[in-house]
Amino acid sequence: MTPLSADAVESDHASPAAAVRRRRIALSYLLTAVLPALLALGLLVALAMSSARAPAAGPAAGGPADHTVRLFVAIAVVILAARLFGGLARRVGQPPVVGEIFAGLCLGPSVLGAVFPAAGDWLFPIEIRPVLQGLADIGLIALMFVVGQESRRTPLKGHGGTAMSIAQAGIAGPFLGGALLAVLLYPAWAGPRADPVVFAMFLGSALSITAFPVLARILDEKGMTRTRVGRLSMLCAAIADVVAWCMIAAMAAVAGQDSPARAALTVVLVVAYGAFMAGPGRRLLARLFAAIEGYGEGARLLALIVGLLLSSAVTSAIGIHAIFGAFIFGFCCPPAVIARQAERINALSGALLLPFFFVGTGLRTDVWRDGLSAALIGVTLLVTAVALAGKLAGPMLMARSSGLSWADSGTLGVLLNARGLTELVLLNLGLSLGLLSDRLFVALVLMALATTAMTAPLLRLAGVIAARADRRGT
Amino acid sequence: MTPLSADAVESDHASPAAAVRRRRIALSYLLTAVLPALLALGLLVALAMSSARAPAAGPAAGGPADHTVRLFVAIAVVILAARLFGGLARRVGQPPVVGEIFAGLCLGPSVLGAVFPAAGDWLFPIEIRPVLQGLADIGLIALMFVVGQESRRTPLKGHGGTAMSIAQAGIAGPFLGGALLAVLLYPAWAGPRADPVVFAMFLGSALSITAFPVLARILDEKGMTRTRVGRLSMLCAAIADVVAWCMIAAMAAVAGQDSPARAALTVVLVVAYGAFMAGPGRRLLARLFAAIEGYGEGARLLALIVGLLLSSAVTSAIGIHAIFGAFIFGFCCPPAVIARQAERINALSGALLLPFFFVGTGLRTDVWRDGLSAALIGVTLLVTAVALAGKLAGPMLMARSSGLSWADSGTLGVLLNARGLTELVLLNLGLSLGLLSDRLFVALVLMALATTAMTAPLLRLAGVIAARADRRGT
Repeated sequence: MTPLSADAVESDHASPAAAVRRRRIALSYLLTAVLPALLALGLLVALAMSSARAPAAGPAAGGPADHTVRLFVAIAVVILAARLFGGLARRVGQPPVVGEIFAGLCLGPSVLGAVFPAAGDWLFPIEIRPVLQGLADIGLIALMFVVGQESRRTPLKGHGGTAMSIAQAGIAGPFLGGALLAVLLYPAWAGPRADPVVFAMFLGSALSITAFPVLARILDEKGMTRTRVGRLSMLCAAIADVVAWCMIAAMAAVAGQDSPARAALTVVLVVAYGAFMAGPGRRLLARLFAAIEGYGEGARLLALIVGLLLSSAVTSAIGIHAIFGAFIFGFCCPPAVIARQAERINALSGALLLPFFFVGTGLRTDVWRDGLSAALIGVTLLVTAVALAGKLAGPMLMARSSGLSWADSGTLGVLLNARGLTELVLLNLGLSLGLLSDRLFVALVLMALATTAMTAPLLRLAGVIAARADRRGT
Repeated sequence: MTPLSADAVESDHASPAAAVRRRRIALSYLLTAVLPALLALGLLVALAMSSARAPAAGPAAGGPADHTVRLFVAIAVVILAARLFGGLARRVGQPPVVGEIFAGLCLGPSVLGAVFPAAGDWLFPIEIRPVLQGLADIGLIALMFVVGQESRRTPLKGHGGTAMSIAQAGIAGPFLGGALLAVLLYPAWAGPRADPVVFAMFLGSALSITAFPVLARILDEKGMTRTRVGRLSMLCAAIADVVAWCMIAAMAAVAGQDSPARAALTVVLVVAYGAFMAGPGRRLLARLFAAIEGYGEGARLLALIVGLLLSSAVTSAIGIHAIFGAFIFGFCCPPAVIARQAERINALSGALLLPFFFVGTGLRTDVWRDGLSAALIGVTLLVTAVALAGKLAGPMLMARSSGLSWADSGTLGVLLNARGLTELVLLNLGLSLGLLSDRLFVALVLMALATTAMTAPLLRLAGVIAARADRRGT
């Protein structure tokens, strides 16, 4: 490299050598910059003068550019609304997911569409829906991956027996409640493709689900993750979730297929895929992640994302929803190795992808479609009451008789009762399979919102009761 | 909380109190878990027996589920292919972007479509294209945001005068070359909507562009970021990029509109928006980021993403492409405050979103469409030669006469000659505006690939020459 800096040349005006250099620079500048620029300008002018051709036919912009505007505005609004409502929910002592679900409802026909019908149509035109749906789908499988991971990571040691009996109480009771509800609601509220048995299985599963991510976040926020009741509730939720998703997978296999033979094949394939992943697949994944150890975090993240997409594609191809493949993949990935990457996927999809799932749900939820009838309100209250009785009361009684205090038992029941996002996943599945009527979907979405929103106040109540009992004890 | 642990209860078999407890647990288990489960099962069986209804009409899965499979598989393939080809490129001493562009071409009709026509159609069916395009669009504006940020962050101090004259040489020469080419190619190679003047402006701009991100990455990899020639080339590229994108914006404003009045309005609005953002907008952004300082990194990232989407939507609504809004927003954001978030956006979109842009370009590039004619090869070679003469030779001569050594001047020319991704952005714009014919698009894509791929070998060559010159000097 030359020791002479260009700036030294520029500032060095005195010597004759510098004068020569300056002249050389000026000449080069004229030749390489000014002259070509002038020639190009002249050429453009000449072209403009000689071109008698009319400006090209029709507007090039308009159509696609307009979609881009809508798409970007819609994405910005969705992400921002989820964040704002999530923040507001946190302010009033609620888990953010309550605010995020609410944000979705607000952007849909229930609120925005009812107040400004034009705004809803402008913000989410039909052309950009596939993109929003695609983002929601990706967010959804990321969520189910995290749910699978967390079910796996929960240590089974110690409370195994107690947790198992409480978890069973937390499934059987709500399932029975849901099945009974199904008998009642089937004639007028079932979807166009609902068979009575499948409808009963679906409603039973819908009431027995627990929102594992919400549960984990609440425990984390209240500093309860390491307490006994906290660990017990995580464990119960993990067991209940695995059982519930197996039932739902079986139901989806039956409901999604047109012939019994096809349904049987689907069940066999699902079981085969699940067994493969739980056994050799798990070992293969562990070996894969060990093999790419040296390529850094990026490679691990890439392997996770690609694996997640492919596993989701497999179950989708088999004939049940992609979420099952995502759950299985999350359950089978070695948690210790990928903890950080899983955390990144979680944070990213939670902030940037799941909002589209909330909004998708909100767009499908129209409380005014058949008028806000007394029947809708009645069914919503009934479903919520059955959900509470099954998921809150059942595990609470089982926990109490297992030796926990009333306050701890209550806390456990309240925690398992939070249905949050996971319930919405299931409800959207039911709607897409044609098991739910539009208005039953609305009632169940409201039930999910209510049972999640009551978690925080009920927990505080249980805390107050526990504090009083402690004071009486001392 | 009770001091009695559930496990202590379970293991404590001897005492009569424990026996009572065990009996109580068993009873609760029967009542809350076993009995409801049996009842639910009975109910399901009863429903199955009584339901004479035939299974529901038609398959629910199939259509949408099938799209999900394709979508997930396509996303996995695209991300994986970009990463693999990028890694291979790095192995052979090329910047990863060369491999990534190549991956895009391989997945398009040029390679995969030519070898397995069915595979291309299966992998990217028409139904999922909007989603892939949406991901590409988001990746694109993230890229242009980063380009804007980097143009801004380059310090102007020190080499101002030299850099300015070299940058001008790096624009004027290629622009003239492009305009001359335009006169030659217009009759047979222009797009259906190309006016001669706009076509000349487009080709001129297309040859004068520099790939700022590629340049920055190459300098970083070679440890040249702090050397004088490294800083000078960054500065030249930054100046040239700002000038080139202004010209392109003007051209897009004219080309995208159907009437001169509408075009004039667009130009006025673009200038007004640019002036607003460069002045008050910049101060507002600085104040905004100062105001949300306390809300943590997540809030800053959110503000960036939302602002980026909205700024892109603004320019798109004005009538020029969204990329200009993204560039302006990136240029106007306070670099010191958001450096980390910008880095995250860059890493994320580079790995997970830009691959869709490469593949989108690849899908539009079909070298076999009109046969691999001698004309196509000839035009590709001609365009590449003009691009080299303008962008490599011009700045090299200007740098040499400004006092840099031949080796440094050559290095500078070679660096500015890398067009990479930024060129693809521009070419896609030209195609969508109807300025380029399909085959000219192919020729220019190949030119972009060639000028980028020759950067690394030419840099090594310049290094060897410099080393020899040094040895002669000592």
